[in-house]
Amino acid sequence: MPAEGSEMSETCSTDLVREAAAVWDAARAARPRVHCITNNVAQAFTANLLLAAGMIPSMTHAADEAADFAARADALLINLGTLDPERRAAIPRAWEAARAGGRPVVLDPVFVERSPGRLAFARACLARRPDAVRLNAAEFEALAGGPAGPGAVADCARERGLCLALTGARDTITDGARGLSIDNGDDVMARVTAMGCAASALVAGCIAVARDPVPGAAAGLLAFAVAGEVAGARSRGPGSFPAHFLDELALLTGARIVALARCDA
Amino acid sequence: MPAEGSEMSETCSTDLVREAAAVWDAARAARPRVHCITNNVAQAFTANLLLAAGMIPSMTHAADEAADFAARADALLINLGTLDPERRAAIPRAWEAARAGGRPVVLDPVFVERSPGRLAFARACLARRPDAVRLNAAEFEALAGGPAGPGAVADCARERGLCLALTGARDTITDGARGLSIDNGDDVMARVTAMGCAASALVAGCIAVARDPVPGAAAGLLAFAVAGEVAGARSRGPGSFPAHFLDELALLTGARIVALARCDA
Amino acid sequence: MPAEGSEMSETCSTDLVREAAAVWDAARAARPRVHCITNNVAQAFTANLLLAAGMIPSMTHAADEAADFAARADALLINLGTLDPERRAAIPRAWEAARAGGRPVVLDPVFVERSPGRLAFARACLARRPDAVRLNAAEFEALAGGPAGPGAVADCARERGLCLALTGARDTITDGARGLSIDNGDDVMARVTAMGCAASALVAGCIAVARDPVPGAAAGLLAFAVAGEVAGARSRGPGSFPAHFLDELALLTGARIVALARCDA
Repeated sequence: MPAEGSEMSETCSTDLVREAAAVWDAARAARPRVHCITNNVAQAFTANLLLAAGMIPSMTHAADEAADFAARADALLINLGTLDPERRAAIPRAWEAARAGGRPVVLDPVFVERSPGRLAFARACLARRPDAVRLNAAEFEALAGGPAGPGAVADCARERGLCLALTGARDTITDGARGLSIDNGDDVMARVTAMGCAASALVAGCIAVARDPVPGAAAGLLAFAVAGEVAGARSRGPGSFPAHFLDELALLTGARIVALARCDA
Repeated sequence: MPAEGSEMSETCSTDLVREAAAVWDAARAARPRVHCITNNVAQAFTANLLLAAGMIPSMTHAADEAADFAARADALLINLGTLDPERRAAIPRAWEAARAGGRPVVLDPVFVERSPGRLAFARACLARRPDAVRLNAAEFEALAGGPAGPGAVADCARERGLCLALTGARDTITDGARGLSIDNGDDVMARVTAMGCAASALVAGCIAVARDPVPGAAAGLLAFAVAGEVAGARSRGPGSFPAHFLDELALLTGARIVALARCDA
Repeated sequence: MPAEGSEMSETCSTDLVREAAAVWDAARAARPRVHCITNNVAQAFTANLLLAAGMIPSMTHAADEAADFAARADALLINLGTLDPERRAAIPRAWEAARAGGRPVVLDPVFVERSPGRLAFARACLARRPDAVRLNAAEFEALAGGPAGPGAVADCARERGLCLALTGARDTITDGARGLSIDNGDDVMARVTAMGCAASALVAGCIAVARDPVPGAAAGLLAFAVAGEVAGARSRGPGSFPAHFLDELALLTGARIVALARCDA
């Protein structure tokens, strides 16, 4: 139990949580289109998660089509899983089309610690200045060359001029100036594939509505973590979790996020 | 509430519904093989839907294999999602193999309104004369150049000499001479990815058994809409829906279709 | 009912079942990394099955990355579904990286009876001497040129110096010297896509821990069949089965395998 006066509080309703909750409600009403170039494993689950959240997914990774779809979407997700030549060709084209339309781009450098070629591609993507990067500690360490402590994450975000959304048992969202940590969630979330990948897509849709990466990323990850925590309590294991999770996400309101959020400002 | 004497009736058992119900029962017994060249997002769900319906799916989109699989199948589905170069090369080969064996081909021109390149490819597919096209209103409008009113859909089908299966809140099946509208379904079906794509595969399998596109497409879409309506009532949201849907489809009989169908002849 | 003194017994706890159950418990503790080059349909379900079993999946089929991932994994699965040029290029690279690190390789020659080109590729894979091959009767017959009787399977395994894991209503695991048949399971398992493909990945992870193909393959297929049988009894149909199945697999212990196994030594 945190001491009185601690920065830590069991429930919190900081300004940023309230702002994120409002973004969530606005995103439900706005129904943004999110184009996702993501890996084979994540494509179906990501589309279902966006639909459950009221967003409109499109998922083609074909290089000849990616710019057309990105140009007609409100946000672009770039996930580096199953990084075959078709995706390597599609990513810069979609990125340019999104930027030409003033749309936000979110990068998910999945498993960059496992392949030097993928790591090099991720660095080239970072040089294009995404609005936000959603990643885990191992991926941060491979990209930043050092451990993912809170200070290092904030410094990296500030230096690169982007929002980092680092997920794990505790999620951290920061642009170096403003941020939030989230303690909601459930252990079973680590036993279901493509959860992080799908969270990144949700972040992209929320940033499109927020028009500001930090509250947008906070909205996406808060919704994700709160729905996951509620669903985890309803689930018998990793098999029954995804159905509960998508049902919860479809029912989730900003008010419920504020009520259930366990955050550090 | 429809006026007395209206064409509209709450429950109906027109000749075509009874014919479609008989096709459904025959398809369950015949267990047709359906080869699907479909998008990455839909591949797993489509295979599971065909298996739940008692059909035998195969799903390779590899150009070197597509003709071999299509030649050994009873029907071919061509879906234009994630239209990468491999699929662009596979589609004509599979189509020719299916035609050489006298097998029906169903086209699903998914999201053609989002990409001029995909629209051009869809037009080339239409020129090959598929037996049926399953699509939604936005896709129809992109292909036909005008709104998807009932008359326009029937005219388009008649002129092109094929069966159109237009899905939405109301489904319409027509070849310009004969047809049916279906009002069964549930709003949650629009919140689950690949539902339309999977319906197209079911239509392909039913046409193979019916050897006639209109009752075949009616069987597929009636089974889909009735199972969806029953499953929707059992579901808490889009997460729990797919499991209920596949369970219902696996249990569905022609008699139940006749009992539950809400159609317009 | 088997006669007294029959080889057949309703429950059995042969040495090999006990050895396999110990492998299962060890695999749960060891959390092996399994790299899978598998087909589009199976990628998500296979990853979820490995995660439910406590293993760590990676799934890229990109030729430029496959060796990097295979080199960092404890086992490699090669599944020949959706065998596009990218996978054809990735498979030998991943195989060599796995072998260079002394890692086991499991081959799943899915649907080789449907495509001469895939069959030829499968033969080339067999010449590389995988540790185990997981397949069904139709695939065995296409590869071996004759029916999959118990004697033929054992002879084939002995001649080729590998472990065969043949699945169906009865599963057979043999290297020609030692083996086991498994009668657990449920008919619904044949109505869900990618079940065999995912079983092959589980076998790969268990062989990595067992460091011996026969008890490793027995552990993987026993866990699969026992969890499937329990889940089948809890399921209403093929839609509800996968969630129950993954939940059961996540809860399964070696002791429960020994208690529920119905095997022939």
